[in-house]
Amino acid sequence: MDPRLEGEFIAVVNAGSSSVKLSMFSLHAREQVGSAPPLRLELHAQVEGLGTQPHFEARHADGSPAGQRDWPVHHLPHDQAIDHLVAFVQEEFPRIEMLGIGHRVVHGGTDFDQPVVVTPQVLSQLEALVPLAPLHQPHNLSPIRRALSGLPGLAQVACFDTAFHRTQPQVAQPYALPYALYESGVRRYGFHGLSYEYIASRLPEVSPRLAQGRVVALHLGNGVSACALERGRSIGSSMGFTAVEGLPMGTRSGSVDPGVLLYLMDQKGLDARALERLLYQQSGLLGLSGVSSDMRTLLASDVPRARLAVDVFVHRIVREIGALAAELGGLDGIVFTAGIGEHAQVIRQRVMAGCAWLGLVPQAPGHDQRPTPPHAATRLSADSSRCEAWVIPTDEELMVARHTYRVLAGGA
Amino acid sequence: MDPRLEGEFIAVVNAGSSSVKLSMFSLHAREQVGSAPPLRLELHAQVEGLGTQPHFEARHADGSPAGQRDWPVHHLPHDQAIDHLVAFVQEEFPRIEMLGIGHRVVHGGTDFDQPVVVTPQVLSQLEALVPLAPLHQPHNLSPIRRALSGLPGLAQVACFDTAFHRTQPQVAQPYALPYALYESGVRRYGFHGLSYEYIASRLPEVSPRLAQGRVVALHLGNGVSACALERGRSIGSSMGFTAVEGLPMGTRSGSVDPGVLLYLMDQKGLDARALERLLYQQSGLLGLSGVSSDMRTLLASDVPRARLAVDVFVHRIVREIGALAAELGGLDGIVFTAGIGEHAQVIRQRVMAGCAWLGLVPQAPGHDQRPTPPHAATRLSADSSRCEAWVIPTDEELMVARHTYRVLAGGA
Repeated sequence: MDPRLEGEFIAVVNAGSSSVKLSMFSLHAREQVGSAPPLRLELHAQVEGLGTQPHFEARHADGSPAGQRDWPVHHLPHDQAIDHLVAFVQEEFPRIEMLGIGHRVVHGGTDFDQPVVVTPQVLSQLEALVPLAPLHQPHNLSPIRRALSGLPGLAQVACFDTAFHRTQPQVAQPYALPYALYESGVRRYGFHGLSYEYIASRLPEVSPRLAQGRVVALHLGNGVSACALERGRSIGSSMGFTAVEGLPMGTRSGSVDPGVLLYLMDQKGLDARALERLLYQQSGLLGLSGVSSDMRTLLASDVPRARLAVDVFVHRIVREIGALAAELGGLDGIVFTAGIGEHAQVIRQRVMAGCAWLGLVPQAPGHDQRPTPPHAATRLSADSSRCEAWVIPTDEELMVARHTYRVLAGGA
Repeated sequence: MDPRLEGEFIAVVNAGSSSVKLSMFSLHAREQVGSAPPLRLELHAQVEGLGTQPHFEARHADGSPAGQRDWPVHHLPHDQAIDHLVAFVQEEFPRIEMLGIGHRVVHGGTDFDQPVVVTPQVLSQLEALVPLAPLHQPHNLSPIRRALSGLPGLAQVACFDTAFHRTQPQVAQPYALPYALYESGVRRYGFHGLSYEYIASRLPEVSPRLAQGRVVALHLGNGVSACALERGRSIGSSMGFTAVEGLPMGTRSGSVDPGVLLYLMDQKGLDARALERLLYQQSGLLGLSGVSSDMRTLLASDVPRARLAVDVFVHRIVREIGALAAELGGLDGIVFTAGIGEHAQVIRQRVMAGCAWLGLVPQAPGHDQRPTPPHAATRLSADSSRCEAWVIPTDEELMVARHTYRVLAGGA
């Protein structure tokens, strides 16, 4: 990192089961455009392979290397990875002033519809939500706990993947299960909220018509989901109680007849852990194709099952767009984002072809190209298309940084 | 029954967990209209309350009583109920010639895409499907087994709730689970096929445009499902592997995030039987409302949860219509059928309101009335409506009788 860098910074931490990622954003007041806070990514650092082959790497915003390290162990505790990242920043970045750390937290339950400064009391509220997201929530919370004790006085802000969806109408939230389960928290929450919120924040500049209209945003990444946006607010989503519902993903099944689980328990003797492994790790594109969870590999493959996996993926997305368009009462546009959404032109073209009945007319060939420069939106639909289509690269870390800045500045 | 009745008859048996129903159809060659066989319902008999308070009742087609009986026991075996029905017909109906018995069978697996004359070999193929529908298939098969031994020489024809959906494209059939599960039979089958096939058979006369077009048929009865019809053929459905998937029903949940089942196993200690009870008997309209599984009761109730249950029911139907319209690539009409679909005007109106975005314009008030005479179709959409809406009363027993007639006549 450039040691000459100085001034105010916000850090963003995104901790998962096998990695801890840190993004450093500087504040440049003179660069402020519109209502977005003046944040600029300066450094990205991460420790990955925590349970297999721990490896640290840091890069400047321009991609140039800023540091790296390996550990001669197969397991590095999350806390140690966090400590390493903090020490790295403090050593390499002696002249900066850290304003606070924003944390991506998967679950805010029904209470948290906004980012929040984490106090010990808030932390215990968030720990109480672990049963709702046992695979993710504990990893999200461990850096917060570490920072509260190790970096006293520095504000820790939790930003939730569920919060953006709290605007959904009540009718969209219950399953048709006993009401007591709904009251106890078994309801549709929706996820990828930070990504959809970022997309919604870009709409006014990208397409004022969509900012005021009815949009289905498609987050097609490692996780895959869709969100119905009405005037930029979430009113429906494909993910519900957990991040396994809805569309097929790399290794996750998406929606499955609950009767399938009963069958697998009764006929195949699967228990909860075996079902969890099946639904989260052995299904989706990987399970159907038997080839890979990576869309690039599948698109390059001529194995029939790879093609079937891609066909099912597209079919389910097109079906979900219809369902969310019904929730919206019509559709003015769709937005592609995240890895597959930003880079897989073939998938975009096939999804758009499946939306012809909604009035989506693609650009003439040659117009669907990867957007440049980074963060630029690209229009995929013809100017005359009643239903617009766009690629808007997402940036969940920047969204967390913005939230953290606003919370610390006392704003909304 | 009128002892003067004579001539050729076809019997239809519909056996469930707590009842066995028998419908007697006479053949009247001179009445044949179009391609439908000349079948007329003459008698309906049933033994119900098999596990609680067994009661036999028979009525002529005009509703006048033809017989009844009670048993002073709390449990009557299915075989005894079947024997009673057969003896009743033989005694009261001495001059008829029985051509064959058609049986409604829930599951035909991947092999049976047509009705079939049941041989001992076919019967064992159907028994092998019991794990796919353990709550229904055994009851459907027990009258067939009884008749094969007790009425030798009389043709037994199995008609499947899945067969009509075998025309669905391959992309609609897999879940995004490991392919080996798909190959072993864990796939989307679809149900209520005899009802949808009957609806499809009425379309040419009801609306030639819909018979050649794209239709979502809504079977809203005790079981609830939706089917996408393209030129009268099924290309998609809300029910998949089992009859619990898809839309909320009287006591069944419809689709639920598979993560909910993992949560209930891990956090609430539910096993397969408890989950089955929850999903099949304690959910749906009953579970959400806490009041009743009966739509009439809910519509008459001013309890807030009753209203929520109805709201969710309508919301999910509207959402599913959008999804199936996407599978069809557009929508020319919807058809309501079965108990709620034929009788709950408020539900129809609300579903139609949710389809305004698809170009559905209802008739002016006063036109949406229960169709008379029986079996008559009623148009609910305005003449100018781009998307039509109809009520078509279903008749699954007649569909089974037609199939049985055709199979015995050597036709399609």
